Amino acid sequence: MPNLLDGIKPTLLMGPGPSCVYDEVYAALAKPTIGHLDPYFIKIMDAVKDDLKAVLGTSNRLTMPMSGTGSSGMETCFVNLVEPGDKVLILTNGVFGKRMEDVAGRLGAEVDSIQFEWGTPVLPQEVEKKLKGQKYSIVAVVHAETSTGVRNPVQEVGDLVKAAGALYLVDCVTSLGGIPVRMDEWGADALYSGTQKCLSCPPGLAPLSFSDRAVEKLKARKSKVPNWYLDLTMIMNYWEGNTRAYHHTAPINMIYGLYAALRHLLEEGPDNAHARHRAAHEQLVSGLEKLGASMYVDKSCRLPMLNAVTIPQGLDDAGIRGRLLKEFDIEIGNGLGPLAGKIWRIGLMGHTARPENVDRLLKALTACMKQ
Amino acid sequence: MPNLLDGIKPTLLMGPGPSCVYDEVYAALAKPTIGHLDPYFIKIMDAVKDDLKAVLGTSNRLTMPMSGTGSSGMETCFVNLVEPGDKVLILTNGVFGKRMEDVAGRLGAEVDSIQFEWGTPVLPQEVEKKLKGQKYSIVAVVHAETSTGVRNPVQEVGDLVKAAGALYLVDCVTSLGGIPVRMDEWGADALYSGTQKCLSCPPGLAPLSFSDRAVEKLKARKSKVPNWYLDLTMIMNYWEGNTRAYHHTAPINMIYGLYAALRHLLEEGPDNAHARHRAAHEQLVSGLEKLGASMYVDKSCRLPMLNAVTIPQGLDDAGIRGRLLKEFDIEIGNGLGPLAGKIWRIGLMGHTARPENVDRLLKALTACMKQ
Repeated sequence: MPNLLDGIKPTLLMGPGPSCVYDEVYAALAKPTIGHLDPYFIKIMDAVKDDLKAVLGTSNRLTMPMSGTGSSGMETCFVNLVEPGDKVLILTNGVFGKRMEDVAGRLGAEVDSIQFEWGTPVLPQEVEKKLKGQKYSIVAVVHAETSTGVRNPVQEVGDLVKAAGALYLVDCVTSLGGIPVRMDEWGADALYSGTQKCLSCPPGLAPLSFSDRAVEKLKARKSKVPNWYLDLTMIMNYWEGNTRAYHHTAPINMIYGLYAALRHLLEEGPDNAHARHRAAHEQLVSGLEKLGASMYVDKSCRLPMLNAVTIPQGLDDAGIRGRLLKEFDIEIGNGLGPLAGKIWRIGLMGHTARPENVDRLLKALTACMKQ
Repeated sequence: MPNLLDGIKPTLLMGPGPSCVYDEVYAALAKPTIGHLDPYFIKIMDAVKDDLKAVLGTSNRLTMPMSGTGSSGMETCFVNLVEPGDKVLILTNGVFGKRMEDVAGRLGAEVDSIQFEWGTPVLPQEVEKKLKGQKYSIVAVVHAETSTGVRNPVQEVGDLVKAAGALYLVDCVTSLGGIPVRMDEWGADALYSGTQKCLSCPPGLAPLSFSDRAVEKLKARKSKVPNWYLDLTMIMNYWEGNTRAYHHTAPINMIYGLYAALRHLLEEGPDNAHARHRAAHEQLVSGLEKLGASMYVDKSCRLPMLNAVTIPQGLDDAGIRGRLLKEFDIEIGNGLGPLAGKIWRIGLMGHTARPENVDRLLKALTACMKQ
């Protein structure tokens, strides 16, 4: 049988994730597997927790990676915090806000939402109005909307949610590692991320943190969490304390990978990493403008790691993306939902966010746009 | 910062999983990450599906790995198939049967069970009696009970379940790759496994298959699957057909690892792999008997890959397991629940099941038992 793995071409990953992976992370994935209850593995788990706290800007005891991709982090937050009939407010301006509505609705929450135009940010004044008219258990927002490239004002929204007494749930899948994440400063009570964006680790884990308030709501539940696999009341006994009770077999080698990725980020320094993302973004925007392409999102709320570019008229969306991948080994992303065919999503995440990569894309795009 | 990954000691994994990982699988994990919608990745996904069908003994179209560890496979089967009020019968003779009761109960099933003594198998005649008295939507059993080392009679139970018209759900986490798994012959409708047992891949994925009957029940649901992350109605659109709609970002590198592990099993030949497990098991049993230790489970239903050994009187359970790990770099497992302190669980799974490994353990055990 031919081995398909031999034919994998190293690709410059400039889509909405996964991003290019650090060499140290690849090496980590291939380290010898040891037992999930081995005291040495528990040392690694403890280091991962500490490093996650550092990069998330939190001192929350309940901070660790869930054994699933970023979306399992979203599922975990809602399934642990929502009890049937809870009123949940979702601030939606893209695919991932919509996904939150779907996830929470399936769990029996009374879901309310404010819909903002895709490509524009959540407006705090609208949130303020809504919170005056109604009491919610949870208010949820996406920090960096991967579907549109918009940064939402999580600090301002957090201040309003705190005043209203609700729990504050923030999706940091795409933001973590690329722009500042300050869980405790924002007053966030539940936060999740993914490994395959600005942490530059392959997909497979969802870093997650719960505040003490969130843990209190969890512990006061009237019924069991309706999801055994993601039940934090049990999982915390594996990640914390002295007994380390077995729940499920942790994804050992993926956790090695996350350990290496977090170490990379902390050694570079999050501030330096954020500056590197910003510089790559500015280089990309200026290069695209020279090519006659314009950015879809207003400068005031643009994300550096996810660049929504209006596809210039007359260009063949899928054709150009296909050529970039086939001829230049570069992946960029398509638009989703109402933005399908209208925008490209160019990711500058983690290890991808480097001047030589931006140059390579701009040259390739120039070639594709000429023909 | 010291790099903890540099201190990982290669360990002979003879516990209940993870098992020793093949070199080709480690190499696969470190292959370049590509996009989850890259046509080349889709080729790899298709090969994984085909290889899974071959090793599971099924032609089910809906066959693929879930993005979580083995327990997420259990959760997926129940959350997709159970609708509130469905009557579910669980045949329990260990931890993983108990876990099924918990999982199904949280999803609103009316859970009924037959409890068999831990260390003994499920008895078809008891199942037959129960099925005569009551109509069930789903009957579930564990093929290889990892907590006790017992093989359950899945073919005989399958015949009864088929006659009773219920869907048949089988846990093959520990059996797959070590003893024959014949999903279609058994008449199983939903089956899941894990990567970290006899497939000798690190933990992180749950191979899963649904029969057409199971898919029909899924499609006829009156309400959405109450778990977005594990909703097969959406996930099948990513793993099947021409559109390959994005659901969540697949764990790319873990899927490379599974591809390599399945390839290894198919190149060795499942029959040869099963014979290798049996031979290692016989070698272990005979060596243990010479040491004065006896097997906990009757010969007629002993698993080759999970050996429950009665801890000889006067020996220090935790002390000896600790010495094996610290001095000999060998991990074996402890007893769970009512068997804690009474048995050791010695795994001979996948790459671990080799004569030189059995020798190494027997020598180390001899040294530890003398002192």
